[in-house]
Amino acid sequence: KVIWTVLVTLLGYASSLPVGDESICTAEELAKYRIIFKGKWSQTAFPKQYPLYRPPAQWSSLLGVTHSSDYSMWKKNEYASNGVRDFAEKGEAWVLMKEIEEAGEKIQSVHGIFSAPAISSGTGQTSTELEVHPRHPLVSFVVRIVPSPDWFVGIDSLNLCEGDRWMDEVSVDLYPYDAGTDSGFTFSSPNFATIPQETVKEITCSSPSHPANSFYYPKLKILPPIAQVTIVKLKKSQLGLSAPFINLPAKSNEIIDSVS
Amino acid sequence: KVIWTVLVTLLGYASSLPVGDESICTAEELAKYRIIFKGKWSQTAFPKQYPLYRPPAQWSSLLGVTHSSDYSMWKKNEYASNGVRDFAEKGEAWVLMKEIEEAGEKIQSVHGIFSAPAISSGTGQTSTELEVHPRHPLVSFVVRIVPSPDWFVGIDSLNLCEGDRWMDEVSVDLYPYDAGTDSGFTFSSPNFATIPQETVKEITCSSPSHPANSFYYPKLKILPPIAQVTIVKLKKSQLGLSAPFINLPAKSNEIIDSVS
Repeated sequence: KVIWTVLVTLLGYASSLPVGDESICTAEELAKYRIIFKGKWSQTAFPKQYPLYRPPAQWSSLLGVTHSSDYSMWKKNEYASNGVRDFAEKGEAWVLMKEIEEAGEKIQSVHGIFSAPAISSGTGQTSTELEVHPRHPLVSFVVRIVPSPDWFVGIDSLNLCEGDRWMDEVSVDLYPYDAGTDSGFTFSSPNFATIPQETVKEITCSSPSHPANSFYYPKLKILPPIAQVTIVKLKKSQLGLSAPFINLPAKSNEIIDSVS
Repeated sequence: KVIWTVLVTLLGYASSLPVGDESICTAEELAKYRIIFKGKWSQTAFPKQYPLYRPPAQWSSLLGVTHSSDYSMWKKNEYASNGVRDFAEKGEAWVLMKEIEEAGEKIQSVHGIFSAPAISSGTGQTSTELEVHPRHPLVSFVVRIVPSPDWFVGIDSLNLCEGDRWMDEVSVDLYPYDAGTDSGFTFSSPNFATIPQETVKEITCSSPSHPANSFYYPKLKILPPIAQVTIVKLKKSQLGLSAPFINLPAKSNEIIDSVS
């Protein structure tokens, strides 16, 4: 019995090792990227209970971090931190920023924090820059779905380093997650704390399996992506005085065209 | 009569010259600052029509820019740009970011853009870093008052350079402005476009002079500050891996204590 316990412990430990540990990044320099977040939360794609008033469908500020595998901002099937809870429930960033700060100070697992302005509709876009470092090549971020009980989209520990070089561009479709801290079932549900707290769960068209859920579409196999993020490496010639601005697309649709 | 017209034109031109032109910045290097925005929009300080529901009193993302005197984000008694209008009315940042991008590309009048996450209550705080350059020593930013027709707080062209050195810390009380694009009178007024558009105006306890206005307090001489911004230079020792995080105060009140 003792042997089994040890084995299970070891297996458990091994399986929870972050992906970032498996490949050491040997790129030589810092790299800068532009991150462009595009909301795809339209009434056409998500007709059920689509929020039109007070507030209409929109996105919170984007809060992100570049880090090593020693830090995790959030992770599917694990418990959300207090900071992620505050952000997912209210869009309040302060506690999450403090958590990131502490990870940066205590275990040097964080390179930098970044944020992009909120989007006032379900289908707009926002953008900012970020910087990665060979020892901190991972990107995580969260954006709250507004209105919602504690739902968000985001990326967990995306590695921008491939061996000895930095990726040029990566684009990821995003789907909704439930932070596990509020039991509301619909976009405009009143606050109703989940006690005990549950883990972060992906919301699909069939889970939670209840007709009242805002994302429950029994006729679909999978939800359409509710958002999309594109992270593009800035060339050296784009760095300098006006670096932060060069890649902003002029119109909402250009982004879709350029990455699909 | 012709002479008078010319004189008035010249005087008008002279008086609208940006402050930043008067003193050339001869500081040698870039400087990094932490900017901390603190909302002071409490029900105690602003009891009239204080928004409690859908949405309760809160602040949008902060969107800012470091620039030269050739660029102006917004200016009292001048017309708001389309970008400032979208931001002040809806918290939508994209058009304003595009305007800043164009100023950066066309006339090299912009050094960088920065943003900080939204605040989910009237009295919280948010923070980010910014970088200034001897040719771009001015800081401007806007934060939308939520809910409101087109009201915001902000800073217009604050010069962080003093001759050959950078200021160590500056703290400014902030008061509400009306972007001049929506004629709503109260925090939760429905949209009502102002046609023709008016200029950006400070809102005081007596102006607009109408009892229905949410900031009309006839017994006060001046409004209490609705927000406060503190910009603190980061020491060289604070730069590096965890630079963005070092100055985050632990609690909401510490900031007030440290700057007053």
